[in-house]
Amino acid sequence: MNKNFDLKITPRSQDFSKWYNDLVEKCDLAEHAPVKGCMIIKPYGYAIWERFQATLDQLIKKEGVQNAYFPMFIPKSFLEKEKEHVEGFSPEVAVVTHAGGKKLEEPLIVRPTSETIMYDAYSRWIKSYRDLPLLINQWANIVRWEKRPRLFLRTTEFLWQEGHTAHATHEEALDATLRMLDVYTQFAKEYLAMPVIPGKKTPSEKFAGAVDTYSIEAMMQDGKALQAGTSHLLGQNFAKTFNVQYLDEKNQQQYVHQTSWGVSTRFLGGLFMTHSDDQGLRLPPRIAPIQVVIIPIYKTSEEKNNINQAIKNITQELSDYRVKIDDDDNKSPGWRFNEWEQKGVPIRLEFGPKDFTKQQIVLYRRDLGQKQIIPLTGLSKIIAETLDDIHHNLYAAAEKYLESKTHYVDDWEDFKNILNTDPGFIYAHWCGRAECEQSVNEITKATIRNIPFSSCLEDGKCIKCGQVSKQRVIFAKSY
Amino acid sequence: MNKNFDLKITPRSQDFSKWYNDLVEKCDLAEHAPVKGCMIIKPYGYAIWERFQATLDQLIKKEGVQNAYFPMFIPKSFLEKEKEHVEGFSPEVAVVTHAGGKKLEEPLIVRPTSETIMYDAYSRWIKSYRDLPLLINQWANIVRWEKRPRLFLRTTEFLWQEGHTAHATHEEALDATLRMLDVYTQFAKEYLAMPVIPGKKTPSEKFAGAVDTYSIEAMMQDGKALQAGTSHLLGQNFAKTFNVQYLDEKNQQQYVHQTSWGVSTRFLGGLFMTHSDDQGLRLPPRIAPIQVVIIPIYKTSEEKNNINQAIKNITQELSDYRVKIDDDDNKSPGWRFNEWEQKGVPIRLEFGPKDFTKQQIVLYRRDLGQKQIIPLTGLSKIIAETLDDIHHNLYAAAEKYLESKTHYVDDWEDFKNILNTDPGFIYAHWCGRAECEQSVNEITKATIRNIPFSSCLEDGKCIKCGQVSKQRVIFAKSY
Repeated sequence: MNKNFDLKITPRSQDFSKWYNDLVEKCDLAEHAPVKGCMIIKPYGYAIWERFQATLDQLIKKEGVQNAYFPMFIPKSFLEKEKEHVEGFSPEVAVVTHAGGKKLEEPLIVRPTSETIMYDAYSRWIKSYRDLPLLINQWANIVRWEKRPRLFLRTTEFLWQEGHTAHATHEEALDATLRMLDVYTQFAKEYLAMPVIPGKKTPSEKFAGAVDTYSIEAMMQDGKALQAGTSHLLGQNFAKTFNVQYLDEKNQQQYVHQTSWGVSTRFLGGLFMTHSDDQGLRLPPRIAPIQVVIIPIYKTSEEKNNINQAIKNITQELSDYRVKIDDDDNKSPGWRFNEWEQKGVPIRLEFGPKDFTKQQIVLYRRDLGQKQIIPLTGLSKIIAETLDDIHHNLYAAAEKYLESKTHYVDDWEDFKNILNTDPGFIYAHWCGRAECEQSVNEITKATIRNIPFSSCLEDGKCIKCGQVSKQRVIFAKSY
Repeated sequence: MNKNFDLKITPRSQDFSKWYNDLVEKCDLAEHAPVKGCMIIKPYGYAIWERFQATLDQLIKKEGVQNAYFPMFIPKSFLEKEKEHVEGFSPEVAVVTHAGGKKLEEPLIVRPTSETIMYDAYSRWIKSYRDLPLLINQWANIVRWEKRPRLFLRTTEFLWQEGHTAHATHEEALDATLRMLDVYTQFAKEYLAMPVIPGKKTPSEKFAGAVDTYSIEAMMQDGKALQAGTSHLLGQNFAKTFNVQYLDEKNQQQYVHQTSWGVSTRFLGGLFMTHSDDQGLRLPPRIAPIQVVIIPIYKTSEEKNNINQAIKNITQELSDYRVKIDDDDNKSPGWRFNEWEQKGVPIRLEFGPKDFTKQQIVLYRRDLGQKQIIPLTGLSKIIAETLDDIHHNLYAAAEKYLESKTHYVDDWEDFKNILNTDPGFIYAHWCGRAECEQSVNEITKATIRNIPFSSCLEDGKCIKCGQVSKQRVIFAKSY
């Protein structure tokens, strides 16, 4: 099943969209399911998700958040309680109308997000200020009907985590909203080697039912933005709808202040699209299911014995890393080199009779496409340093690309021109009016990705209407 | 939210069923969701599931199995392809008829199990004998409409893992079926401290579409059986339906031989029901989210400082264990003792001014309900030994109970009498005919749980009809 590497991947320059599809399918990450819009995450793709999940889960738990699990079926009436929320999600929900051989009295919605079912529980669980903050996360599958599905990026069913917190004050809720966005930002940088830009969404782009939405935006290799994660300040909107109240220290009933935040399998799509090249995947070492692949090379059975024994020792020395030995004699070493190169394993070690004699090993770096010969003595230390270096190199390359495609633009004609000729992130002034935001989108297809935290206050004129603006925002085409 | 421990749990002797419900709700494990039949797994209950999942996942991966993820929506036509399968599951499925604002052309079934959607993929993935065995597992949510739901034991939505393997030969498939059942048996014993009885189901109790089903059966404290896990030999039934073929070494097309096997959140219900008592939960140490809870006791602020500093050192020494310090001054130490006792933490350490002076600590064992004073020196070693001892003690107690409720019966009147007066597992002869099996069930409510591997061949007479029998089977009432 896993032998497609010899099928060539369409080069990015020829057709970026096809390149991405080839990448996902030919590297055995995922494939389209027989149910329209759904995907099958294949073992190699799922192993990456498992690393992603385990790592992020630890970071979330460090913030004092506990995991739980809520039902995936939500009574239709729950979704309808919050006006903006139902308007936002109604067009894309899947509805169970029959079950257990009967028509249901009330149809059930397959969760498109879990605010309503969770906050109904919170209204029972939270009684006093002593129960706050309540910090809960769940890992779950989500359904939002997708008309134009793309593997990982947009699928009808996807996997995600959704955190939902309740606090006594607005300040604490805002703090939690921003802190979790920062957890995502650091996770992207430290584990996925992805530079992302944190900022605040405009009112027209915020989550249905939220007071404010914050996002991290990553840049793909075609200059388009990918929203990789969001964190919402929900204020007391849902608390009032679902009657989530607590008794404060003065014995007064108060509504809680809430947040929700999530990232999904979409983030993996962003990861693949950020680092990979025309040869295939390039996986950052800290998230790669296989960090080092060792390929033995031999002809005679004596060579085979010697080399396998030596590799056993090498593997033992490398027990701190995720190592795979590929000694499948049905395929030539060269075939195996290509296969793991396409699948993005950060380091390949080649070990043959000459290396055995000289007590050395050939180390190939996927990020640089370069080989070097290193001594067996002290191998573990070199692997540690190299993995670290690969991480930083991938991050630096992505950052460099992001910077090269970042434009500060003050003229509307330039704005349109750049979006056509050299698309990327355009930092431009915006007056704050939804009309201008919409008009820019209609003319150029670009949207405001977010108002980046890094954007200082400065006087300027709206790129579209010329009215007063205090701050630049990021415009870009997006996934 | 987590302060219900002072609400008394109904004693087992008074109402076993109510005892179980109290246990689950008052120990903050789970609660009924607003959607009938579904449950909310609360943080403490979910933490146990996380330990369960992580541990079993490792054991499954040791067998060379890889995780993947398949869509939860299954086209109705897929389910209908295998005749027995659709007959088995049709009455309990949930059906999505509308999505994305439209009526669907073909209704979608929310997966009640994933054979059909997975084997459709297998038919594309498997081409040659080199692709075999294919060993895949998924962790997922499952929906089977439940008319009489019970928390953990029977819920409309539940969490599980389902492994699905494909092999070249019958022998390999049978071997995998039995090996995975053995993984479950060992997992139950080594991590959950649960004795379970592995064996083969009778034809009328097998999985819809399987050739043979094997199960592990645990005994609850009311003498009833709980089927904790199953492993199915699917033969070539599904392979023929979904056209899962491979080219063998002689270049001939052959159908694969398949297996599937799973355990679910139901197993946790069995875990709780096996070990807990009238005071609340008793968690086996290897699965307990908190293995050791430390409760500081002090009055003056000087005492508080000294004791907190000492506890910091103690915690450091115990960094190999899952330790929680409960220093919540809003609750008295006694209150906290009771809370963690009810929640089943295996070891409680109490540390007060006297202990500080004497360099000792009070160790309370949840399983024995006994306190002892031990020196601080060498604490870590004592904790390791004690946790081990608790595990073995819980296992031994469960095994002793199981044995005390195991009866070898050869007379039909005795059989009926024992089921009424001292219910448990009855090893009795059975002729192998479905009529007798059904008749016993109609008269006594007992079913054949399985034909245990431990049951030797011996001549006997069917407990019901008196005809020739070669083997005893286990009859019991069950969950």
